[in-house]
Amino acid sequence: MKAKLFAASLAAILAGGAGAAGEGAKTSLLDRPAPNPENLPNDAYGKLVRYGHELTTRTFALIGPEVQDKEKRFAGNNLACTSCHQDNATKPYAMPWTGVSATFPQYRSREDSISTVEERVNGCMERSMNGRALPLDSPEMKAFVTYIHYLSRGIPIGAQLEGAGTKPTKVPERRADLAAGEALYGKTCAACHGMNGEGQRRGKVGDAEGYIFPPLWGNDTFNNGAGMNRLLTATRFVKHNMPQGTTHLTPVLNDEEAYDVVAYVLSKPRPIKASLDKDFPARWNKPVDAAFPPYVDGASADQHRYGPYPPLMEMAKQRAQARNAAVAPQKPAAEGAK
Amino acid sequence: MKAKLFAASLAAILAGGAGAAGEGAKTSLLDRPAPNPENLPNDAYGKLVRYGHELTTRTFALIGPEVQDKEKRFAGNNLACTSCHQDNATKPYAMPWTGVSATFPQYRSREDSISTVEERVNGCMERSMNGRALPLDSPEMKAFVTYIHYLSRGIPIGAQLEGAGTKPTKVPERRADLAAGEALYGKTCAACHGMNGEGQRRGKVGDAEGYIFPPLWGNDTFNNGAGMNRLLTATRFVKHNMPQGTTHLTPVLNDEEAYDVVAYVLSKPRPIKASLDKDFPARWNKPVDAAFPPYVDGASADQHRYGPYPPLMEMAKQRAQARNAAVAPQKPAAEGAK
Repeated sequence: MKAKLFAASLAAILAGGAGAAGEGAKTSLLDRPAPNPENLPNDAYGKLVRYGHELTTRTFALIGPEVQDKEKRFAGNNLACTSCHQDNATKPYAMPWTGVSATFPQYRSREDSISTVEERVNGCMERSMNGRALPLDSPEMKAFVTYIHYLSRGIPIGAQLEGAGTKPTKVPERRADLAAGEALYGKTCAACHGMNGEGQRRGKVGDAEGYIFPPLWGNDTFNNGAGMNRLLTATRFVKHNMPQGTTHLTPVLNDEEAYDVVAYVLSKPRPIKASLDKDFPARWNKPVDAAFPPYVDGASADQHRYGPYPPLMEMAKQRAQARNAAVAPQKPAAEGAK
Repeated sequence: MKAKLFAASLAAILAGGAGAAGEGAKTSLLDRPAPNPENLPNDAYGKLVRYGHELTTRTFALIGPEVQDKEKRFAGNNLACTSCHQDNATKPYAMPWTGVSATFPQYRSREDSISTVEERVNGCMERSMNGRALPLDSPEMKAFVTYIHYLSRGIPIGAQLEGAGTKPTKVPERRADLAAGEALYGKTCAACHGMNGEGQRRGKVGDAEGYIFPPLWGNDTFNNGAGMNRLLTATRFVKHNMPQGTTHLTPVLNDEEAYDVVAYVLSKPRPIKASLDKDFPARWNKPVDAAFPPYVDGASADQHRYGPYPPLMEMAKQRAQARNAAVAPQKPAAEGAK
C-alpha cells in the first residue's frame, strides 16, 4: 500500500515533468528519522557504511595528522567531520549529508564546474580539514561515499531538499562589531571552545584522540579556504547550531549576535590555503564573503571580510543578471519555449 | 499537490522503515518516460550530461580504438554502450542505467566487495568494451556518472527497481543445442549481425564510426569476461531485446530458442580477458554460467559453458545456504532481534 502510493506519486511527478525535466521533487529533512548503521548486517555493505560512519565521527583517529600510519594522514587537523556536520552528519541545517547522493553531481561555483560527491568530500579534506585529497579509489573515499548514500536512502535523485546546507539569516546593514563579538564569545562560546579558541582536547597532543570541543582558530582547525571561513555562511551555521544543543528551531543568538561573534572568530589566525586565487574562477559568482583576493567588485578586503554586505550583494546580483542575460541565447530553443 | 503527496508517501515509507532500515521503496522503470538531455540548458550541467549521452551512444567515436587521440582510446572495440544498453541506456530489462545512481554503491559478487558507480562503469570498460579503465577523475568518467545520475532523477535512493537488469527466463533442463542455435542464428540474427558474427560497419575500418549492428564474436566485440559472455545472462537479454525492436512484452524467441542461439554465439571465439581466475574471489557465489576456471563444484567446463544448469544451480543454492548459515552469528544482536 505504501509502495503503491509512493509509486503513484512518483509517476505523477514524472508525468508532471519534475523528474524528466530535471527539476527535483521537494523533500524535507526536518523530521526525517536518522538511520543507525549498527542495524545493518555484518556484511560488506554494513561494514563499509560503518567504516564511513567512523571516519565521519572519529576522523582524527583514522585519517588525522596524529595517526600512526603516515600514509593515512589525510586530514591536516584533529577535527572530525562531525565537528561541523553534527549528529553523524544528519542534522538539518548543519550541512547534513543526507540527500547529498541525490543532489550531486552538481554545479559548484568554487570550481565553476560540475562536482561529484567525491570531489565535494575532497573539498572538505583540503579546506575544513586542512589536509590533502583522498585518492578516489581509496577505501576511505569509498566509505564516505557509501555512508552518504546510506544516509540518503529514500530521497529521490534530483530532489530539492528542505533542511540542507544552512538556514538563511537576515544580513545586517553594517560592518560586524568585533568588540561586541569578543564579549559574546567570552560569554557564549569560550566555556567549550576556550578563551583562545583552542578547544578542549579529549586526551593529549599526539594521541590522535581529537577534541571534545573543536578549536576555532590557531593551527589545528579549518583553513582560510573553508566554507566556514566565510562570515555569512558561518553566521548561518552558528545561529542555528551553536552553542551545543541549539537547533534551527531554538536559536540562542540572534542574527546580529551570530554575525558579530563569528566575525570575531574569523578575525583570528588560522591555517592558510595556497592558491585561493584559483577559487571561483568564473569570478562573477564569487560569494561576497569569500574574504580573499581577487575581489571583482572594487570593494575593500575589509568589507569582504566584515561587511557591510548588502551593497556587495546588490552588486553581485547585478553581475549575475548581466551574466545570465549574456548566456541566455545559448539555451536550446526547446528549453526557451517552456 | 504532487509534491505534497510525494512527501507524504515518502514519510510513510521512512516511518515504515523502508528507507531507515535500508530496504528500498519499489519503483518501476517500465512506463517511465525517458528524459531528453537536449532539453537541458546549455550550462555546465547540461553540457556534461550531453557529453555523457554522446559517450554512451557514440562510444566508438569518442573513446574507441580508432579515435585519433591515442590517449582517449579507452574502449578496445568499436561497440557503443548502447550496443547492449538500448534506447540511450533507458530500456527496461536491457540493463538500463536508470536508477543505477540509486542502487550503487552495492555489493558485487564479481569483486566480492562494494562497488561504486565508477567501478561498475569500468567493469564494462574492461570487459564489454574489451578496453581499459577510465581514470576516476577523467572528464569521461564524470560525464558517465552525471548522465547516469540524470537518467535516475526522481528515483529514491536505495529503491528496488522493476525493469532493472535483465528479465528472468525459464532455464532449460538440458545442455544447449548448438546446431539448433546455429540454424536459428541464420534465420533470426544473421541479417543484421552477419553470418560470421561480424556485424555491419557504419563506415570503414579505421574511421571510428562504429557499427550499425555490432559484431557478436571475433576481435571487435566483448571479451570473455563480460556479463554478456554468460549464457544465462545473455539468454535473458536476447529473449527480451532481440531481434532489434523486441521488448520484454513482445519476445520473438522463446526461452529454449534464446538459450540455443546464445549458446551458438558464445561458442565462437572472442577476445580473452587476462586474470579471470581473480573474478568472484569468494567462489561460493560464482555464477553457474561464468564459463571460466576455477570451477568450484566439480562440474565440467562444458557444463558451465552450455548447461544443463539446474543441477549446478541447486549446488550453488546449497553453497549459499551453507555460507549464510556460517556467517549468520556475525550479525549484530540488534539486527537479529528484528
